[in-house]
Parts: sequence; C-alpha cells; structure tokens
Amino acid sequence: MIYLDNSATTKPYSEAMDTYRTVSEQFFANPSSIHSLGGKSESLLSKSREQVARLLGVDDGEIVFTSGGTEGNNLAIKGAALAYRSRGRHLITTCVEHASSMNAFRQLEEMGFEVTYLPVDHDGRISFEDFKKAYRKDTILVSIMHVNNEVGTIQPVREIGEFLKTKPTTVFHVDHVQGFAKVPLQLKNSGIDLCTISGHKFHGPKGTGILYVRQGTVIAPLLSGGGQEGERRSGTENLPGIAGMVRALRMTLEHEKDGIAHLSDLQAQLRKGLSGIENAVIHTPVSGAAPHIVNVSLKGIRSEVLVHALEKDEIYVSTKSACSSKDSGASDILMAMGIPEEEAAQAIRISTAFENTNEEIAAFLSALAENVQQLKTVMR
Amino acid sequence: MIYLDNSATTKPYSEAMDTYRTVSEQFFANPSSIHSLGGKSESLLSKSREQVARLLGVDDGEIVFTSGGTEGNNLAIKGAALAYRSRGRHLITTCVEHASSMNAFRQLEEMGFEVTYLPVDHDGRISFEDFKKAYRKDTILVSIMHVNNEVGTIQPVREIGEFLKTKPTTVFHVDHVQGFAKVPLQLKNSGIDLCTISGHKFHGPKGTGILYVRQGTVIAPLLSGGGQEGERRSGTENLPGIAGMVRALRMTLEHEKDGIAHLSDLQAQLRKGLSGIENAVIHTPVSGAAPHIVNVSLKGIRSEVLVHALEKDEIYVSTKSACSSKDSGASDILMAMGIPEEEAAQAIRISTAFENTNEEIAAFLSALAENVQQLKTVMR
Ligand SMILES: Cc1ncc(COP(=O)(O)O)c(C=O)c1O
Ligand SMILES: Cc1ncc(COP(=O)(O)O)c(C=O)c1O
Repeated sequence: MIYLDNSATTKPYSEAMDTYRTVSEQFFANPSSIHSLGGKSESLLSKSREQVARLLGVDDGEIVFTSGGTEGNNLAIKGAALAYRSRGRHLITTCVEHASSMNAFRQLEEMGFEVTYLPVDHDGRISFEDFKKAYRKDTILVSIMHVNNEVGTIQPVREIGEFLKTKPTTVFHVDHVQGFAKVPLQLKNSGIDLCTISGHKFHGPKGTGILYVRQGTVIAPLLSGGGQEGERRSGTENLPGIAGMVRALRMTLEHEKDGIAHLSDLQAQLRKGLSGIENAVIHTPVSGAAPHIVNVSLKGIRSEVLVHALEKDEIYVSTKSACSSKDSGASDILMAMGIPEEEAAQAIRISTAFENTNEEIAAFLSALAENVQQLKTVMR
Repeated sequence: MIYLDNSATTKPYSEAMDTYRTVSEQFFANPSSIHSLGGKSESLLSKSREQVARLLGVDDGEIVFTSGGTEGNNLAIKGAALAYRSRGRHLITTCVEHASSMNAFRQLEEMGFEVTYLPVDHDGRISFEDFKKAYRKDTILVSIMHVNNEVGTIQPVREIGEFLKTKPTTVFHVDHVQGFAKVPLQLKNSGIDLCTISGHKFHGPKGTGILYVRQGTVIAPLLSGGGQEGERRSGTENLPGIAGMVRALRMTLEHEKDGIAHLSDLQAQLRKGLSGIENAVIHTPVSGAAPHIVNVSLKGIRSEVLVHALEKDEIYVSTKSACSSKDSGASDILMAMGIPEEEAAQAIRISTAFENTNEEIAAFLSALAENVQQLKTVMR
C-alpha cells in the first residue's frame, strides 16, 4: 500500500497505540476523583500537559485538550467571538479556510456578527495589505489558517501576528492543523492568542487535539460542565487519547527537522516527475508552500476517476479535502484561486508523511503516468 | 483493588480495547476520503451506527456519535434551545442535574433564555405535578436526567415523556448517562427527542458517547464543519473509539438483565451491612432508585477522611460526583434534598458495576466498619 492521503488523516504510530492501551488499563480512574487512583490519573494528565507545553514553548495553563481540530477551531472562533462580543462585532478570516472554521463563521453571521472573508491570489494566498485594509477598530477576532489543507499554501500569519501584537482588543487565532510539524510556527511572543492542532494529523489517536489559549485570552466554553481544562473544555478527560497524542507529538517533534527535509525532497521528486506527465498542472505554489502537499490537475481526467484508478494499485491520494470530498463539484478553494471549474474538478491532492519513501513516490509517479495514458486513450 | 467508583468512570473492557487497536491500525483512513480505504472506514462507521440503532431500538439516522456525556448534554441543550429560539424562550430542568447540563442552562440564561429549575423532595425526586405547573406554552425544551449520579434517584421521565408526546412544540432531552444499562429506558414512542449516553460509564473508551436525536428534531451544531454525523457533529470521526464503544455497548446489553439483578443484590447487601454500622444514614431512596448507587453519610466523619482511609485498603469510593468533587463543601444535590450541610459533607458514594462481587462488598463493609470505629476513636 502506498498511502499519500496524510492530510486527510495519518496511520497512528504503534507506540502511540501502546501508550493508549497502557493508560486505558492502568490509569482508568477519573482524574477528578479524589482518591489516590484518581490522583494517579490526575498526575499523568498534568505531566502530559507539561510535556506539550514544554514542546510547544508555552505554559501549562495555556494548553487545552480537545477532541480534534474541528472542536479546536469551533471553540476558538465561537468561544472568542462570544466572549468579546461586547467589544465589537467584526471578524476577519479568509475564503479558503477549512469547513470547521468557515461554518463556525457562518453560524456567527447568523447571530449578528459581521465577517470579512479575505480573497486569495492565484497561489491561494491572502495579502497582508488586504488584511490591513479590512482591519477595523471593532475587529475582535482574526482567524487565519497557517497552511492550506488542499494546496499547502502558507498564509502570512507571522506578519499578521506582528501587526496584531499592538492591538490588544483583537484576538488572533491560527488553524495550525496542517502546519504542525510541517511548517514550524513559534507561539510565544508571536501575537497569536489561540492555535488549533489535531492529533490524528501527526500519527496520534483520532478524537484528540490541542487548543493553545494564551494566558489572558478568554473564550466562552462550548462544552460547559465539570470545569475540566481550566473551565475551557469540560468533560471527563480522554486520558488514554491525550497520553497517546503526547507520545505521537514527542516522536514527531524529535524527527521534525529531518522529517521536513525529507518531505521537501519527496516534494521535489513529485514536482520533477509530474513535469514529465503531459497535461499535469501543479497548483501548489513553488515558494511559500508546505512541503507535504502537492495539488495537481491532470487535464482531461476528472479527479474521482483518477483516485479510483490509482486505488486499484493500492495507491491512495485524494480529491479535495476529505471533509468536502463528498460534495459533488470542484474545490471551492481552487476556484477561489481563480482556477477554472473544469480544471479544478481534475485536481488531486498528494499528501505525504515522514514515513513515505522515495521508492513510493517513484512507484506512484509511474502508476500515475500509466493511468493517465490509459484513461486518455479510453476517453478519446 | 476494590473499585466502587463506577459512576465516576469504569475500567474499559479489554475486548473494547482490542477493537480500538484493530480499528486504529486497519481502518485508519478517513471515512470521508473517497478512495476504497476511506470506503472501508465508512462502511465500518455505518455498521457501528446500525448496531447501536438496533440495540437501542431506533433508526440509524437518529444516532450521533459524540466525545462523551458532557458533549451530548451541551449539544442537546444548547443545540435545541438555539434551534427553536424563535418559538419561545422558556426552558425547564431540575436543580439536581449534572454540571454539564446545569452549566449549559446557566449559559443559556445569560443569552436571554428563562429557565425553571424544578425542586426535589427528600428522595431527590422532582414531582410530576410541579413539572406540569411549570410547563408553559412557550416552553421549548425540557431536560431531565433519568438517574441522579450522586444518589441514584430515578426521575419520572416516562411520565413526562407521555405528557410531552402531545406537545409537539417542546423538545424533551433525557440525560441517560447514569441510567444506561442500569435502569432500562425505551426511546421509541416515549416522547423523548434527545437522549445522552456516555461510553466510559459502561466500560467503553473514554472520549466517546452517543446522542440520540429523534428524527424531525433539529439541533444547532456546536461543532460545525465538514458535516459529519448528519451535519449535527462535525469533525473527523474517532472510528476506533466508536467501534470500541459499540463493542462495550453490545457486551453490556448482552448481560443487562443478569447484570441489573446482580447490582440489586449487591445493593441489598450494602444496605443490610450499612444498617449494622452505627450512625450510617443512607440517602439513596429505598424505592425508585437505580441499583448501582448507594449514597450514605457516616455521621461524625467527613467524607474525604473516609475516602482516604479506605484507599489505604485499596478500596475506592467517592465523595460527591467526580466533576464537582474538588470544590470544597458539601454536595449541592444532597442539600437540595434538604439534608443539613454537615451531614451532606459526610456522604460517600458507593457505585458498582456488573463485575463487582459479593465478596468485594463484604470486604468493603468490614473495612468501612473498622475505619469508622477507628476514626471515631481518634476524633473523641
Ligand atoms: C486545516 C484544517 N483545519 C481543521 C481540520 C479539522 O480537524 P479534525 O479532522 O481533527 O476535526 C482539518 C482536517 O481535516 C484541516 O485540514
Ligand atoms: C448524569 C451525568 N451526566 C453527564 C455526565 C458527563 O459525562 P462525561 O463524563 O462523559 O462527560 C456524567 C458523568 O460524570 C453524569 O454522571
């Protein structure tokens, strides 16, 4: 099997699964129970939180464990908008966000908030100038993804963070789900107040995630209740999931530098190989993009047809983002980039992980060339 | 170890953990990915949903997988209140709900909803008459727990369901987290529109749960995004958690009848044993209570002292509900029942599971008697 759909989800590390199981059985008590068995669970929870905080260079109290990226984005966006609604009603985001941000903003619009959706250029990138023009005195929240999940484009979140550092009445949220361990991002002193990460995108257990909440930033909880996670996310903690995710996070960051270099190498190999395939048009920009995603249209072939052709060789790539892949029609993101609908409907996304090898990419490229050749013959 | 804190959380079945691991590794693809690997995950998800629906006697489309009881309660309560706010602004609940319901109502009050909190009698039970008096034409939501998590009292949810069957403009939510597989509750044709269940309370994985949403009942999503779970709960599905929970659910329901009889037997043994201990006052009512909880005050001994004394013998019981056990002070629920503060601060909760044995209860009772004797001597 050649799995090249790592932006949709990754195969969990078996070490993370070992941790999951051990913790499930040996630390099953509720961290909120006051007996010593609960105390044992509580200690492990604190230790996990400390590890994450140290690895991300932030404070323990700034880490909120969630059930994933969708929860992180919803909690950050709705939570901040509701917490600061008395300050203003204007929000800024982009037109290429993941559905979990986009639809959170749509719900807020229904509740009376005003949202500016920044446009993108042909590379899928917003401009800092547009952002500054959209920014107003009553802007209470800015939410921008770091790396786009379909094309890999990096947004100018550092620049925006610098700008927002001097605006204490605006909360800045970054969706770092695709960027984590692919395009390093410093949180401390970055102007970023909220940052979403998802466990299953770096070989952690599904149903886990982290929301960074900078000290001093208030969010209204979506899940209120027993007051866990510093009143920001109630519910009996998924301690096995948390510990498993922390293990995967540690393993990922240990190999981050080499891993990213390897991803870049695979990406160069992909670009080179694709340039030899007739009618292949790469949408991922050459510079300012993450190393793990290549989005490419094979002109004349609808993306679903190609995905299903490749799966016969046990090669797995995707059409657009998994979350919207069942809507018929072309990618909204590619269309926002000004790519014609027909071409957008011919795009596939190849997304790699540290584990993928040059041999796998070579095998993928030759299978792709072969399939493209065959499908074209069929279509003629 | 004698674990008698099963209302806080349970030890996961090792079979559920086996399922978790197998699914993590063999069905790791995203169910939303259109390739065949995603299709395999999607089929398992559908199969899991069908199994749950069949076991609960409802339809597939009525099952929403969540991250637990807290999410289920928040989604049901906030989701229904927001979806139906144009119909009316009045909500009814009780003053003995779990924090995850209670605090959801507090947030809704801040948003302009009016909430009636029904009082309880000395047994911790609301009266159907009070409920009918509180009910108004503009009541859009009624949310009542089936079984109280601290004392085990069963609320008249069937009667209320019958009444609400004839009120199509009111949504009825039941928090069935403590009642599931302890006090059977029919969902179909019950007048119940929404019902919350939590996986870790019946030996399933933590971070899993089910919200039953009757066909035709609309809830505003808390987590919007990719549209998973029929647009009611977005986010990449925690398929290993779901499959593990379904396994635990099946195992639990297979043994439900015998299990409940066994719990009743353990409860009778507890009552008998406690009646022989000086100054033990049982708060769990003799009739109309779940079989797995006994709440008892040992007069003269603060509950924390007793919990820590028993843990020395590796016996684990709790003070009040785990979620509020770290607030100092006596249980709000016992106080709502009219129990004096001092006595309420002396209450411990013993909560059993199918796996507990008569021998464990006997050992617990003798350890309790011994500790009570010793602590009294110390205190004199
Ligand atoms: C950029 C981005 N944000 C958010 C999410 C949602 O994360 P999760 O799948 O953990 O709900 C995804 C994953 O699909 C994503 O790619
Ligand atoms: C009655 C009741 N409702 C809701 C919950 C919350 O469930 P969870 O722990 O899965 O968040 C609990 C558990 O503590 C409970 O006892």
